[in-house]
Amino acid sequence: MPNKTSALIFERIALIGIGLIGSSIARRIKRDGLANHVSVSARSQQSLDKALELGFADSVTLDQKESVKNADLIIICSPVGTYSNIIQNIKSNLKLGAIITDVGSVKQAVIRDLEPHIPEGVHLVPAHPVAGTERSGPEAGFAELFEDRWCIITPTSQTEKKSIKQVTEFWKSLGSNVEIMEPKHHDLVMAMTSHLPHLIAYTIVGTATDLEKSLTNEVIKFSAGGFRDFTRIAASDPTMWRDVFLNNRDAVLEMLQRFSEDITALQRAIRWGEGDTLHELFSRTQEVRRGVIEAKQEKMYD
Amino acid sequence: MPNKTSALIFERIALIGIGLIGSSIARRIKRDGLANHVSVSARSQQSLDKALELGFADSVTLDQKESVKNADLIIICSPVGTYSNIIQNIKSNLKLGAIITDVGSVKQAVIRDLEPHIPEGVHLVPAHPVAGTERSGPEAGFAELFEDRWCIITPTSQTEKKSIKQVTEFWKSLGSNVEIMEPKHHDLVMAMTSHLPHLIAYTIVGTATDLEKSLTNEVIKFSAGGFRDFTRIAASDPTMWRDVFLNNRDAVLEMLQRFSEDITALQRAIRWGEGDTLHELFSRTQEVRRGVIEAKQEKMYD
Repeated sequence: MPNKTSALIFERIALIGIGLIGSSIARRIKRDGLANHVSVSARSQQSLDKALELGFADSVTLDQKESVKNADLIIICSPVGTYSNIIQNIKSNLKLGAIITDVGSVKQAVIRDLEPHIPEGVHLVPAHPVAGTERSGPEAGFAELFEDRWCIITPTSQTEKKSIKQVTEFWKSLGSNVEIMEPKHHDLVMAMTSHLPHLIAYTIVGTATDLEKSLTNEVIKFSAGGFRDFTRIAASDPTMWRDVFLNNRDAVLEMLQRFSEDITALQRAIRWGEGDTLHELFSRTQEVRRGVIEAKQEKMYD
Repeated sequence: MPNKTSALIFERIALIGIGLIGSSIARRIKRDGLANHVSVSARSQQSLDKALELGFADSVTLDQKESVKNADLIIICSPVGTYSNIIQNIKSNLKLGAIITDVGSVKQAVIRDLEPHIPEGVHLVPAHPVAGTERSGPEAGFAELFEDRWCIITPTSQTEKKSIKQVTEFWKSLGSNVEIMEPKHHDLVMAMTSHLPHLIAYTIVGTATDLEKSLTNEVIKFSAGGFRDFTRIAASDPTMWRDVFLNNRDAVLEMLQRFSEDITALQRAIRWGEGDTLHELFSRTQEVRRGVIEAKQEKMYD
């Protein structure tokens, strides 16, 4: 639904970082005319050239400070480990009334790194679109990435209601449903629903890689038996995920500890041939699948 | 490619069990005219009624012994824990020259349970099509399930070359590529590529279920972050998978031990903030994904 006839929520939008998420936002903005100007900054000229070539940036620059000038909305779309440098770099060039938001997968650390540096009259609205693929880079984005997906907004004690409303409307215009959540609670839920699954997928793919070479090749050859789904998850951007684990340590370690206890119990059940224990768990997990389908987080059997 | 004009490999085929795999085989046979008669036996009248309704069985019976009479090929398509009873039940009713094969995910245990009971003049050709979905039951099958997937045949010291050739041709007619493998090696490769991924998926979904109810619901709600891929794997048939773990114990425990060591090392890296260790692993696993795509075990980005 093109928005050109109605008033724009934000006239000028600056994207810092133009990977999978940033480029998907940019494509959607361009497709639906959601802003008059999209300014893109990135660390490499190659990414900027690609952004220009793909046609979703009105201006590009290697200079973050330059890119945020006059922007009404600044969206940080780079790994969460970069935020601290970014805010210190751009803070003197922000427009009065501008909103800074982000797309990071952890929120307490983001607030810790950003909030102390937000200038008077500028508004911080931390956000996290729960969407993605295993691909990365500007070519990987697509305008429909956020369609029917959740975007979680985690206001701080200092976030104004008006700013929350604007960022909410913006994410709805990208096709998302919006949920408001406490930053700490967000990090706990994501530790289980996203961070632990990624950690486990990276681990098992690593375990397979460490087998003797011929065995690893056979694991790959016959990966349709289950392994391939893990390889997809474990193909996600390494820097983004390193930063996630370093910045959501406590919640990830808590969930990982629970998982380790549970798999140790299953290990014992296998060793001692306790079929009932296995069958009971394997039956219980089928219900969760039904829940996921009912929650429309996945089409049935897609 | 309908096969009606050429000589059939097997005139009469008996399927014992008619779940996802059995019904997929039956549909393919019917679609392409790969046999003159498909006889189906199952444990429940409900499954047999469904098989008749769906039109891929020429005759159905609750009596396994009856169903294998005059069959040229008998395919056991039930959980591997049932094989021992099945062979003792049917062995006196097998046609001279008949071939018994199966679709079980473990092979050493299958051979242990079947081979001592195979009558003189009947041939055992253990096989494992590496294909499946998380669905189960006769309705879940489809004729294309084995298309471009591997079927692994694991002959024993007693298996005749002629029988291997016939079963190979049969699986090729279902659309599969065929690989010949030692039973023990098969079980080791599958422990890593299929059994451990399923065990881990079942575990993490169980871990999420054991959280407080409201948190579990949120994990489901936001499962697009990674968790939903595990719920799909963990929705597979509980009885089938219980039997797999009970019957491939040593190989699964070996691979699980390696995985546990690796995740403990990552846990330590997260606790101590060792970003380089994380980044090194997360980069290494991207290559495996490329291998999976090159091995055509998955379309690019599907």
